[in-house]
Amino acid sequence: MSEARVNTVLKIGGSVITDKSGELAAKTNEINRIAEEIKKANTQGLVVVHGGGSFGHPYAQRYGLKEGLKQESQKLGFSETHHVMTVLNGLVMDAFVWHAVQAISITPSSCLITENGRISDFADAPLKRYVNMGFMPVLYGDAVLDTKLGFTILSGDQLLSYLASNLHAERMIVGVDVDGVCESDPKIDDDARLLKNLTLQDLKKLQVRLGKPTSSDVTGGMLGKIAELVPAVEKGIEVTIINAMKPNYVYRALKGDPVEGTVIRKE
Amino acid sequence: MSEARVNTVLKIGGSVITDKSGELAAKTNEINRIAEEIKKANTQGLVVVHGGGSFGHPYAQRYGLKEGLKQESQKLGFSETHHVMTVLNGLVMDAFVWHAVQAISITPSSCLITENGRISDFADAPLKRYVNMGFMPVLYGDAVLDTKLGFTILSGDQLLSYLASNLHAERMIVGVDVDGVCESDPKIDDDARLLKNLTLQDLKKLQVRLGKPTSSDVTGGMLGKIAELVPAVEKGIEVTIINAMKPNYVYRALKGDPVEGTVIRKE
Repeated sequence: MSEARVNTVLKIGGSVITDKSGELAAKTNEINRIAEEIKKANTQGLVVVHGGGSFGHPYAQRYGLKEGLKQESQKLGFSETHHVMTVLNGLVMDAFVWHAVQAISITPSSCLITENGRISDFADAPLKRYVNMGFMPVLYGDAVLDTKLGFTILSGDQLLSYLASNLHAERMIVGVDVDGVCESDPKIDDDARLLKNLTLQDLKKLQVRLGKPTSSDVTGGMLGKIAELVPAVEKGIEVTIINAMKPNYVYRALKGDPVEGTVIRKE
Repeated sequence: MSEARVNTVLKIGGSVITDKSGELAAKTNEINRIAEEIKKANTQGLVVVHGGGSFGHPYAQRYGLKEGLKQESQKLGFSETHHVMTVLNGLVMDAFVWHAVQAISITPSSCLITENGRISDFADAPLKRYVNMGFMPVLYGDAVLDTKLGFTILSGDQLLSYLASNLHAERMIVGVDVDGVCESDPKIDDDARLLKNLTLQDLKKLQVRLGKPTSSDVTGGMLGKIAELVPAVEKGIEVTIINAMKPNYVYRALKGDPVEGTVIRKE
């Protein structure tokens, strides 16, 4: 079979589709709006990844899943954490089906294994075939098995970067709840200046200046997000970070129309 | 890694956990009772498969998915059919999590592909690892990709037989909404005599005498069920067919206690 023709990998942050100050709190209005924008954009070769927000993160933290299997009692926590992620994914898929998008969910923990937290074995034959057939695969951050740790948490950001690299995507779009990468933390500093264009070298300088994430996020928030994206950007896949809370930003980014945000390129 | 120590593959029929005269009609009381019985039995090395009932079947039929991809409009039907199966599976997993069972759902369409309707490529590394770690994988009949047909419907019965054979299970248990295999159709004939012990040779003789399924079932009802089980029984894996609507039958079958039903052995 020919190579999957993936054009774009779009990540929708957990902070966009859930209320991270709550627990199991989905923002179904935002989910619905974003599904509508994706339908309207009608992007060919699109793969979507979403985060865990107030579904995955509080559970993963409570049971210490990211650090791996240390005691038997964590196993129930693993079951629960994966289950709540399927609930959030179900709400996302409901919206896609409602908007007649040819979307198909792919369960990360069913088809991939990590080694020390990094994807090491991804049985991606179904995923590639879905893309070739014109379906839009939807994946998400998940509790997954790990050859060294027993199990761990796979972030949606690692998935995004892995998929973009391995499916030879042309671009990544990352929808978050801030305007992009700023000189300071925009959740603390109202005057935080948005950085519209960054190279990998600019990024390195920035990483020390960016603050810690502002709420519960086992995957490291913006710092972790940027670190995860670097390997894909190094391969020449540019990333546009946009505020997915703002109506039509996802749509415009998908269409390639001008949209406020941060573009990160190799050089 | 050592071979997965699978002892039992348990199938719960779609007619047990859904109302097949309706559509998207889950019998959550039955789902809850069966989850409780599985928790109480505490069977090591257990894999569970459930059917689609009034979730998967009406959708699969409406879009003609079993026969494969013939027109573009079926693709949305494929998305919908898989989605409603994840909804049913979500209700089943809710019950397991509620009863503190270390269950983990495995999405068939995410990790396997069929060829002309038969499983040809199953990336089962996560599944085997889950079993080795003491988790209980839960799979289900699903809309899946097919190398020849584009896509098709994979029955829970084929999955049951495949898993039992390939994971070298000791036994299969099939929970349905009748008492077992009868000389005539028990849904029509009240005096239908239950056949308690059958060999494969007995089965062959019976197959011509068994009637058609009594309601919508794209996977062929009891006839299809029995035909699917034969390859596993030929390998020496016995199957017990029980009425899972009757309280404690699933529990007793799992414990190996005497329970009314039909046992099918190689000879």
